[in-house]
Amino acid sequence: MHEIIFEADTPAGKAFDVGLLWTILFSIAAVMLESVASVREQFGFELRALEWGFTVLFTVEYVLRLIAVRRPLAYATSFFGLVDLLAILPTFLSLFFPGAQSLLVVRVVRMLRVFRVLKLAHLLGQAEVLMTALRASRPKIIVFLGAVLTIVVIMGSVMYLVEGPENGFDNIPRSMYWAIVTMTTVGFGDITPKTVMGQFIASVLMVMGYGILAVPTGIVSVELAAATRHGVNTQACPGCGTQGHDLDAKFCKNCGHALY
Amino acid sequence: MHEIIFEADTPAGKAFDVGLLWTILFSIAAVMLESVASVREQFGFELRALEWGFTVLFTVEYVLRLIAVRRPLAYATSFFGLVDLLAILPTFLSLFFPGAQSLLVVRVVRMLRVFRVLKLAHLLGQAEVLMTALRASRPKIIVFLGAVLTIVVIMGSVMYLVEGPENGFDNIPRSMYWAIVTMTTVGFGDITPKTVMGQFIASVLMVMGYGILAVPTGIVSVELAAATRHGVNTQACPGCGTQGHDLDAKFCKNCGHALY
Amino acid sequence: MHEIIFEADTPAGKAFDVGLLWTILFSIAAVMLESVASVREQFGFELRALEWGFTVLFTVEYVLRLIAVRRPLAYATSFFGLVDLLAILPTFLSLFFPGAQSLLVVRVVRMLRVFRVLKLAHLLGQAEVLMTALRASRPKIIVFLGAVLTIVVIMGSVMYLVEGPENGFDNIPRSMYWAIVTMTTVGFGDITPKTVMGQFIASVLMVMGYGILAVPTGIVSVELAAATRHGVNTQACPGCGTQGHDLDAKFCKNCGHALY
Amino acid sequence: MHEIIFEADTPAGKAFDVGLLWTILFSIAAVMLESVASVREQFGFELRALEWGFTVLFTVEYVLRLIAVRRPLAYATSFFGLVDLLAILPTFLSLFFPGAQSLLVVRVVRMLRVFRVLKLAHLLGQAEVLMTALRASRPKIIVFLGAVLTIVVIMGSVMYLVEGPENGFDNIPRSMYWAIVTMTTVGFGDITPKTVMGQFIASVLMVMGYGILAVPTGIVSVELAAATRHGVNTQACPGCGTQGHDLDAKFCKNCGHALY
Repeated sequence: MHEIIFEADTPAGKAFDVGLLWTILFSIAAVMLESVASVREQFGFELRALEWGFTVLFTVEYVLRLIAVRRPLAYATSFFGLVDLLAILPTFLSLFFPGAQSLLVVRVVRMLRVFRVLKLAHLLGQAEVLMTALRASRPKIIVFLGAVLTIVVIMGSVMYLVEGPENGFDNIPRSMYWAIVTMTTVGFGDITPKTVMGQFIASVLMVMGYGILAVPTGIVSVELAAATRHGVNTQACPGCGTQGHDLDAKFCKNCGHALY
Repeated sequence: MHEIIFEADTPAGKAFDVGLLWTILFSIAAVMLESVASVREQFGFELRALEWGFTVLFTVEYVLRLIAVRRPLAYATSFFGLVDLLAILPTFLSLFFPGAQSLLVVRVVRMLRVFRVLKLAHLLGQAEVLMTALRASRPKIIVFLGAVLTIVVIMGSVMYLVEGPENGFDNIPRSMYWAIVTMTTVGFGDITPKTVMGQFIASVLMVMGYGILAVPTGIVSVELAAATRHGVNTQACPGCGTQGHDLDAKFCKNCGHALY
Repeated sequence: MHEIIFEADTPAGKAFDVGLLWTILFSIAAVMLESVASVREQFGFELRALEWGFTVLFTVEYVLRLIAVRRPLAYATSFFGLVDLLAILPTFLSLFFPGAQSLLVVRVVRMLRVFRVLKLAHLLGQAEVLMTALRASRPKIIVFLGAVLTIVVIMGSVMYLVEGPENGFDNIPRSMYWAIVTMTTVGFGDITPKTVMGQFIASVLMVMGYGILAVPTGIVSVELAAATRHGVNTQACPGCGTQGHDLDAKFCKNCGHALY
Repeated sequence: MHEIIFEADTPAGKAFDVGLLWTILFSIAAVMLESVASVREQFGFELRALEWGFTVLFTVEYVLRLIAVRRPLAYATSFFGLVDLLAILPTFLSLFFPGAQSLLVVRVVRMLRVFRVLKLAHLLGQAEVLMTALRASRPKIIVFLGAVLTIVVIMGSVMYLVEGPENGFDNIPRSMYWAIVTMTTVGFGDITPKTVMGQFIASVLMVMGYGILAVPTGIVSVELAAATRHGVNTQACPGCGTQGHDLDAKFCKNCGHALY
């Protein structure tokens, strides 16, 4: 049973995963449709019934998983174990707190369950390369986000002074929201500078955002290139077990042992 | 005849292609102009006549193509064969369904026919490099799109809870539309967060979108660099085995040995 | 005199260039200020006088350039010669056509004259690398723009059908304008999809634009890396004069002659 | 004392830095909250008291720094010395100029003090790589910004002519603001082209901005790759002369010779 539920090597395991994937997607579609007022009014009962069907299915699956693993507590407190619980809990709780619509929206965490299934697919290697690149980029990205936050705080304060509440820049947090909207080039247009001075400062901020946008892209590109390059040599040194050797490495860079 | 219509090596074939290219572009311009109410009222008859001229031309071309190829059925059911048919069908059908304006818009698929012509031009090599890079990026892009979709579903649901229908976030699908508009940094501004909490979550989403924008760029950059590199010259020097020569290299840049 | 006006090696030539640069920038500032209604009303006379001062200066410079070069006609019909003429002509013509404000705006072409001055500065090498990268990217960029245009034409037509004139998508050209605004992630919000179907198609277009944005960035990155790399070895082969060798090349890749 | 305040090697120095970091962040949060009208009305007195507490703390710290350094004047006139002074001055000045709210906003420069603390953290190396890449990109970025400014001036003037004050393009500076908003893909939508000609020119500008956005990204990517590469290990193997070893390599990856 462990093999069917947790692995995807056997035909049964694969069929189980594909079935689960579609069940998850349909249950999320149902949650979405339920949020549409006109659909809820017309098909409220059907959606409710469908929802209970999905919940029962997921509950059975959850119980089976608990039985199949060797250490059920470790599973129940793991990230995916909690996600599995959150996927069924809201429907049961809605019996006791009938009006709690916000509870029902929690069910979209089911979306995260898709990753459990995909984890077993052939996309895993690619996701690993992406994750390696992002993990390697983290310290640079943190420095970068710190710089962005500083610019947002200072530019937000300056715009609050220059434009003021009469032009929609009511307070510094709101001005900072505007600064983020502008710097990320989203530009909703719900708050816009009206004074000449404000428009000039906004122009400077936009051109800065333009240039700054280049930094994370550059970081990820470089790390992704490195991850792609390094990702080919997965060999561990026979001498000391060190990994992460270059593709052209003939000797371990840590202990000098021949790699082949 | 096959050579004139399908190849571009001979002067006649080239002239045919160039003529076809311009005819396609003019016919699309005509479709566009016809959609403008003021132009349609004033020049409706002329446009109609022009349209029939183009349709007759394309029909003749379609028939000639059918005759010129060895296996007409294979051509007729190929992608470009269907595009060729779709380019002429709407005008003929409009005789039977006079009011079907939507039918006429279908004629813009003619735009796709431009690629048939360009396929024969000297840009082919470049397009090939681009396509190779995009094809190689596909598994990574799929993983990436999956992550984006998950963020969109969860963020859309959260914003639906936080902002609610009174601020324009009517239901989860509409909130997801907003999340996509925000994350891709498009930022129409037709729906914007009004509450402080909503603006904070939106800020987080925007900065995330900012960082995430870097990922596909990095992916394509890396694959494009690989495609460009590999596309150049994969030949190893017979003398010293050095690789990575330019496409126009006749001698090894390392040992001077002739490459051919 | 040729050295002072056209070169920047001598102190006099450098002083001339710096003086010219500031004069150009001030004259453009004057054109801008004149376009502001309130400034024009208050300082109209002063700006007019200033403008004539600049025009006289530029005219003297133009005449000096004509005298200084060996082939005045070749200069006058060159790109920068025409720009120099366009920089002074509008002011003179405004004597004969007093109301032609559009004529006066033409004076901003003076901005292009800045490049003539900068051409002589130490930034030339960097600009050369950028230009090389962009020139090398051109065929790929053309293929890319063709693909973008096709998507814009087809998506614009589809949205015109789906949303229609009642939602601001008045005709296909206007829908194409919207498609460009959306795909480039500008997102003005002057036209936005109102129907559910329209919002869904727009979401697809946005995510596509998101991915497509990665392509030119990748292209330029790769070519820029190549230009930076190749830019180091400016050596021509002593044997056959071929340039563009790799940095690590020891032998000419064209004739096999030793490079050192 | 110098070690505690200026260094982070000792436990006391580290504790001082962490404490300072949180004090700075809380004091900025207080400045932000004070700018919110509803909060100011309700908790005005508490925020005022808190502010004086922070100011006293920072003043004590400033005096201690002056005492701890060997050359107090050099510190006081350094960049961070001035920032430290600006962080406390506004509160004291507000005693003499009670209504000067703009003075109080100046306190957000405290944000810059965060960098003094972070300077000592382990992120320094990463920040150094980023700064190296940006510094190396500067000449290219200047050329690039010059080109952007030229396009903005000329496009702004053209749109002022084409659209005119009746469509919101009141004068050339305002048109230039629009051109920057459009080219950086921010797209507020506060000013949008209304005429067909204006929308066509805007489309061209957007596609240009799209392509141009690729240039700084490419520049930073290339320089970042170079900075990352060079930052790794510039040592050549004493045995075989091979370069490009990882930073943690102890043995040559090509010949196995010890690197030290």
